[in-house]
Amino acid sequence: MATITPVDDPADPRVDDFRDLTTADRRPDRPGGRGLVIAEGVVVVRRMIESPYPVRSLLGVPRRFAELADDLAGLPVPAYATDADTMAAVVGFHLNRGVLAVADRAAPPDAAALLRRARLVAVLEGVNDHENLGALFRNAAALGVDAVLLGPRCADPLYRRSVRVSMGHVLRVPFAELPGPWPASLDVLRASGLRVAALTPAADARPLTAGGPAGQRVAVLLGAEGPGLTAEAMAAADLRLRIPMAPGVDSLNVATAAAVAFHVLGSPA
Amino acid sequence: MATITPVDDPADPRVDDFRDLTTADRRPDRPGGRGLVIAEGVVVVRRMIESPYPVRSLLGVPRRFAELADDLAGLPVPAYATDADTMAAVVGFHLNRGVLAVADRAAPPDAAALLRRARLVAVLEGVNDHENLGALFRNAAALGVDAVLLGPRCADPLYRRSVRVSMGHVLRVPFAELPGPWPASLDVLRASGLRVAALTPAADARPLTAGGPAGQRVAVLLGAEGPGLTAEAMAAADLRLRIPMAPGVDSLNVATAAAVAFHVLGSPA
Repeated sequence: MATITPVDDPADPRVDDFRDLTTADRRPDRPGGRGLVIAEGVVVVRRMIESPYPVRSLLGVPRRFAELADDLAGLPVPAYATDADTMAAVVGFHLNRGVLAVADRAAPPDAAALLRRARLVAVLEGVNDHENLGALFRNAAALGVDAVLLGPRCADPLYRRSVRVSMGHVLRVPFAELPGPWPASLDVLRASGLRVAALTPAADARPLTAGGPAGQRVAVLLGAEGPGLTAEAMAAADLRLRIPMAPGVDSLNVATAAAVAFHVLGSPA
Repeated sequence: MATITPVDDPADPRVDDFRDLTTADRRPDRPGGRGLVIAEGVVVVRRMIESPYPVRSLLGVPRRFAELADDLAGLPVPAYATDADTMAAVVGFHLNRGVLAVADRAAPPDAAALLRRARLVAVLEGVNDHENLGALFRNAAALGVDAVLLGPRCADPLYRRSVRVSMGHVLRVPFAELPGPWPASLDVLRASGLRVAALTPAADARPLTAGGPAGQRVAVLLGAEGPGLTAEAMAAADLRLRIPMAPGVDSLNVATAAAVAFHVLGSPA
């Protein structure tokens, strides 16, 4: 059972992990920080407790700890109970959600090990917007993606904003950086028996609905909203798929396009 | 050609349409305001100019007017040119996008007229989040939705935030309120030859991928994220469809779920 410990003084060093979450140069979840993972709100805190990430401690108002009573039962870490104002003084802003948890990073899984039994995988190139990345993980979790592999120039999925937008699903869907030079590193996918399908708005790509590799094991290769995939990444794919779109409309948001592809490619043929 | 008129004084009454866009009680796009429609940025301003909404005037920095030169060529309205600081003093905040346009509302189309030739329609119940509503219109435009019908408790698609998040597509996809008592008012859809398909996470609904009415004329009935469709709306539908999801995952965002349904139901069988 987590020990619920009252904290009255915002300067209490026991809550240092939660301090100044908006001050860029002191953010524990940023590069240069201590790499901690921060969960906000009952739903996301619960997912963190269920995840492989080792929870260090919690900070929250008593009402939220009451909601989390079952989740805290088996958790041997301190839960610091305080009021909303003290919490705001520690964190640096008023947190409507009323509870935070902080975890260390888990050892990243090995990409090849992740792929061994995966049926549906997402591979990202240059997805550097934390909000899009979080939304993509939420969609990946809902639509049965087994693993996410990060190519070059992707944002950190464990950044606070990504964790929040993903509703905690970045803590649930396994991910790893794809090792080696890009895009030759995509060969590890083929070696694992996955076909690499690039998602692109290019007019000469195959429409996603017309057959496609549904029912096969497939890795969906996704680029950033705006620039899309690089020519090199596109050339390294086994096939190119497009979501048919009305003329004169910009492409879909990358997380939305990913959801459509995950749904179609993840469904039994 | 729009007349480009310099404006130096933030108090100039000619730019009153653009004044205090963040002050809730003076917002021209809010209920109680003058019901004006506001477009922000080159892309959305361009869509407004192409739309049926009658543009009243523009306010922007000269560089943005230069980008819009072709669009302004046939437009008989004033374009007030100013610098970024004067613009910020009028609008109430610093606008990175550098150009605004304001339009009157167009006369709302008649729901039955919209439906006559529509192949794919979205019908919304309680979608009251401006951001979700805007994202839904963006997806509707991209994925070939012919019309959006608003049931009870929906937000205003022409609210500034919805216009922006939709990337201006609320000005492109025709929409109307569904007249009459809900959900009996759904009968107008059936009278127009459309099947009404409720999208729901309910386990006993038909999986979206397993046949479904692809290729038929269909109206997708969507509820708000969280509560979803009311039991009454669900009972009034012709069929219920669900997007298969991984166990233990919350539903998708409503705009994302809509995109998946639009893609599957709008594709030729």
